[in-house]
Amino acid sequence: MITLYHCHGARSFRPLWMLEEMGLDYELKMLPFPPRVFAKEYLAINPLGTIPFMIDGDTKMTESSGICQYLGTRHGPTPLVVGVDDPAYGAYLNWMFFSDATLTFPQTLVLRYGTLEPAERRQPQVVEDYAKWFLGRLRAVEAAAGQAEYLCAGRFTAADVVIGYALRLAGNLGLAKDFGPNVAAYWERLQQRDGYRRALEAETRAGEAQQVPKRA
Amino acid sequence: MITLYHCHGARSFRPLWMLEEMGLDYELKMLPFPPRVFAKEYLAINPLGTIPFMIDGDTKMTESSGICQYLGTRHGPTPLVVGVDDPAYGAYLNWMFFSDATLTFPQTLVLRYGTLEPAERRQPQVVEDYAKWFLGRLRAVEAAAGQAEYLCAGRFTAADVVIGYALRLAGNLGLAKDFGPNVAAYWERLQQRDGYRRALEAETRAGEAQQVPKRA
Repeated sequence: MITLYHCHGARSFRPLWMLEEMGLDYELKMLPFPPRVFAKEYLAINPLGTIPFMIDGDTKMTESSGICQYLGTRHGPTPLVVGVDDPAYGAYLNWMFFSDATLTFPQTLVLRYGTLEPAERRQPQVVEDYAKWFLGRLRAVEAAAGQAEYLCAGRFTAADVVIGYALRLAGNLGLAKDFGPNVAAYWERLQQRDGYRRALEAETRAGEAQQVPKRA
Repeated sequence: MITLYHCHGARSFRPLWMLEEMGLDYELKMLPFPPRVFAKEYLAINPLGTIPFMIDGDTKMTESSGICQYLGTRHGPTPLVVGVDDPAYGAYLNWMFFSDATLTFPQTLVLRYGTLEPAERRQPQVVEDYAKWFLGRLRAVEAAAGQAEYLCAGRFTAADVVIGYALRLAGNLGLAKDFGPNVAAYWERLQQRDGYRRALEAETRAGEAQQVPKRA
């Protein structure tokens, strides 16, 4: 049984969406955000205190996009993974790494210095710098989404899961109003997927059952 | 022939080191830093203006740790890659993604707001916040490096390449003085490798031949 620790709307939504797309069995454990403040007992499970945390037998992982690649390859085969011999393999891998290292991290700065920090530690300049940075890097998605329905390989893959989550987070941060037309249409398409909707429902259901409040 | 665009000391050192460890043929193109300011013609090659950029036939990639995974799997087999069926596969993948998304991005904030930005835009609080963040996340490396010579799978792998680069960058940023004893010893071991030294030599040689100045 795969166990996934998740906070409402956090990066752990990537592996949750991947689990739903693959139809795998899993247990979803919801935590208040940030867990290192509101669920200190979690540090005994994941000493870094970060979300996500996934346990699959002896395997333990903390990196949201890496977990998606793991699930697709270890619990596949699945068309969600692009294989080494596919001409789109390099593009696929690039999106997998780009999703978190290049897109989500700048978003966390907008969140931290715009909302999470107490008023005297907020940094409007940093929020502006990294909103701009995020939107600049999103040009790569705007270009790809203008050429095909999905990012690579001519089909929906884990790359769309991990990039799609960055678009969900952008919506929560108020950045979606600056999406280009191709990104906006692509994000609309992704939200129509059954797998995406099931993941949203699983998040809400588990949060209610475990009485963990939603974040704004 | 594989082409790699690189700036002295930049994240593109990861694929350069990987290429040297694998003994692959490649062409190294050096650029001044940051290329989007000092080599505007580069934007025609990589519209994002970021480093690295790798071209291998029809494949083009921008993500340093992703390129290492690509090289090892597409141009392998090599013991540098941990395969899907290996018990250490999840740990290996996690280090691959952790290296850039969790370790290097905080380092870029220390660099940007401590050094690169003009004086009036520097942000000592952000430098301090993300130096602390980087060192906090490095506890995962401190724990792993205390248990074995390399991070996973009982041998040197691409995970050591991509995490090792973050330690090189930490040295350049003045953060190495805060390494724990296991990280410090691990980083000493990595620097003794022939592949690491060849990569450093290739960087220096190409920089001199192409008359691109070293960064401080």
